[in-house]
Amino acid sequence: MESNLDEVQKLKTMRVLSGIQPSGILHIGNYLGMMRQMVELQAGHELFCFIADLHAMTSLNRGADLRANTLQAALDFLALGIDPERSVFWVQSTVPEINELTWYLSNVTPVGLLERCHSYKDKLAKGLPANAGLLNYPALMAADILAVQSDIVPVGKDQKQHLEVTRDIALKFNHEFGETFKIPDALIKEEVAIVPGTDGQKMSKSYGNTIEIFGEEKAIRKQVMNIVTDSTPLEQPKNPETCNVFEIYALFAAPEQKAEMAQKYRAGGFGYGDAKKATFALLWEYFRPYRERRAELSQNLDAVQKILQKGTDKARVEISKTLQIVREKTGAFL
Amino acid sequence: MESNLDEVQKLKTMRVLSGIQPSGILHIGNYLGMMRQMVELQAGHELFCFIADLHAMTSLNRGADLRANTLQAALDFLALGIDPERSVFWVQSTVPEINELTWYLSNVTPVGLLERCHSYKDKLAKGLPANAGLLNYPALMAADILAVQSDIVPVGKDQKQHLEVTRDIALKFNHEFGETFKIPDALIKEEVAIVPGTDGQKMSKSYGNTIEIFGEEKAIRKQVMNIVTDSTPLEQPKNPETCNVFEIYALFAAPEQKAEMAQKYRAGGFGYGDAKKATFALLWEYFRPYRERRAELSQNLDAVQKILQKGTDKARVEISKTLQIVREKTGAFL
Repeated sequence: MESNLDEVQKLKTMRVLSGIQPSGILHIGNYLGMMRQMVELQAGHELFCFIADLHAMTSLNRGADLRANTLQAALDFLALGIDPERSVFWVQSTVPEINELTWYLSNVTPVGLLERCHSYKDKLAKGLPANAGLLNYPALMAADILAVQSDIVPVGKDQKQHLEVTRDIALKFNHEFGETFKIPDALIKEEVAIVPGTDGQKMSKSYGNTIEIFGEEKAIRKQVMNIVTDSTPLEQPKNPETCNVFEIYALFAAPEQKAEMAQKYRAGGFGYGDAKKATFALLWEYFRPYRERRAELSQNLDAVQKILQKGTDKARVEISKTLQIVREKTGAFL
Repeated sequence: MESNLDEVQKLKTMRVLSGIQPSGILHIGNYLGMMRQMVELQAGHELFCFIADLHAMTSLNRGADLRANTLQAALDFLALGIDPERSVFWVQSTVPEINELTWYLSNVTPVGLLERCHSYKDKLAKGLPANAGLLNYPALMAADILAVQSDIVPVGKDQKQHLEVTRDIALKFNHEFGETFKIPDALIKEEVAIVPGTDGQKMSKSYGNTIEIFGEEKAIRKQVMNIVTDSTPLEQPKNPETCNVFEIYALFAAPEQKAEMAQKYRAGGFGYGDAKKATFALLWEYFRPYRERRAELSQNLDAVQKILQKGTDKARVEISKTLQIVREKTGAFL
């Protein structure tokens, strides 16, 4: 059931579904781990991309905050290259057919299948209350995926089991009611680039070690200047291979920039402070066009709303086709 | 939380919600146990009445059958006196906002609350597979009830716990998000008239001892003639108090008819065959206007569809008001 990006890219016109929770401020780890791949996928494939605000409700029950996060996520995605003309881009809660499909699917979804999900058990272990929404999370995710008859779903390793649940539900439904859903394949994201945080651990909002993409210049500079290094004095040669600063620099640098920077490290007389300044400058430059686009969008929220509305309309066309078949088969009144 | 019909009838303009699964052919036990009360309620109250086809999917997964049953139930209800001008009458699956509301509610619904429902445990004990739909049944029911801000829900004793679950969910939501839902009261149907079946047990489809309301004349006559009696010979006096035939007769007879029939029993020279013929004649007469109305409706299914569509539209107006508030509070994208 797994594939990798290279194989997928050989096959044209695959339908790819990607849903991302609006989790707040985007960092460069999110960008390299997810956003960039999605933008690349949309070149060769039919991308359906939505902001999973209904899923976010299972752990974030604060109305205004969630809605603000959703809008910020929309700005982020559009700024970073989701093309609403080429792809279908919408907010999950604006297509309530998804909740309807969840109900039809839930009648072929064993409770045990949901109870066995690691993600459910992990969240309970972290102290989240065992609410029905949390338990039904994978059934809602199955509805997202099956509603658009996805071929491919890029998922992180933590979501792999949920995709297996989706496949189980789809197979069960097809068995009970006849061929209805395409059985989707996971595209397991290879973590080729594990992005280190400013403290050397994996970059993650929960560790507080992120470098933001769209923050204020001063704040981002401070995040970069706070990257932890060893205490090799300025004049001594340094090993780029073991340095967080270099590792982050290298993720965004062109090959010749990377080689030049490595040389400076090894030559000595080049301090970590210099390396950090160069890294900040590189990042600031790298994200400049995205930042400008985002500023433009945030000055024009009406246009963003229109883009999202158009995405909702396009998503609904596809999702309604599936729903019509499912309603017919399950006996919903027509 | 319980009330009784007399108390409710004193209070004007209560909003009453009633949902009934489309379970197939209606019998006189259904009529006396439920339908008649509902029709009476609509005189003094604001009745919201829907055919619960989404609920039926938790145990009946056969599309065409379910849809046919739903249409038959619509004809039954309209024929027996649901007035679509005065009341709001619709099919559950035609208002998908209910599924949407179920999701919002499920994020404040403890899984344990659902697992503890007797009805869930009973269904598993009877061999139904433990599917998520079955577990979530009370959350869907809560959405039905809370979506229209019901004051009163007439329920049988078996559904009393589900109404308690609804109240728990509503209180929890109101606590988390501020006053949103009216807390509904149960109207526990007093089984004043336990309707005996043709074998003397309680009349129930599952016992195969029913007398249908809208069957063919010949079939209904046969059901009545099959009522079990003792073997007292025709010429001897008989005790009406212990006779199923008399009991059924008495449920539909005017007081003077009932007295006259009791006298015939006690006088002797009046056989059970005679009593059955009189009972059939009484029932056939009693349901004549309903039968004629039903025949008319079934000749005009387009008009029935229009009635249901109008009901859906009216229900959606009310339900959308609630959903708008809930979307705002839970952070759905607006």
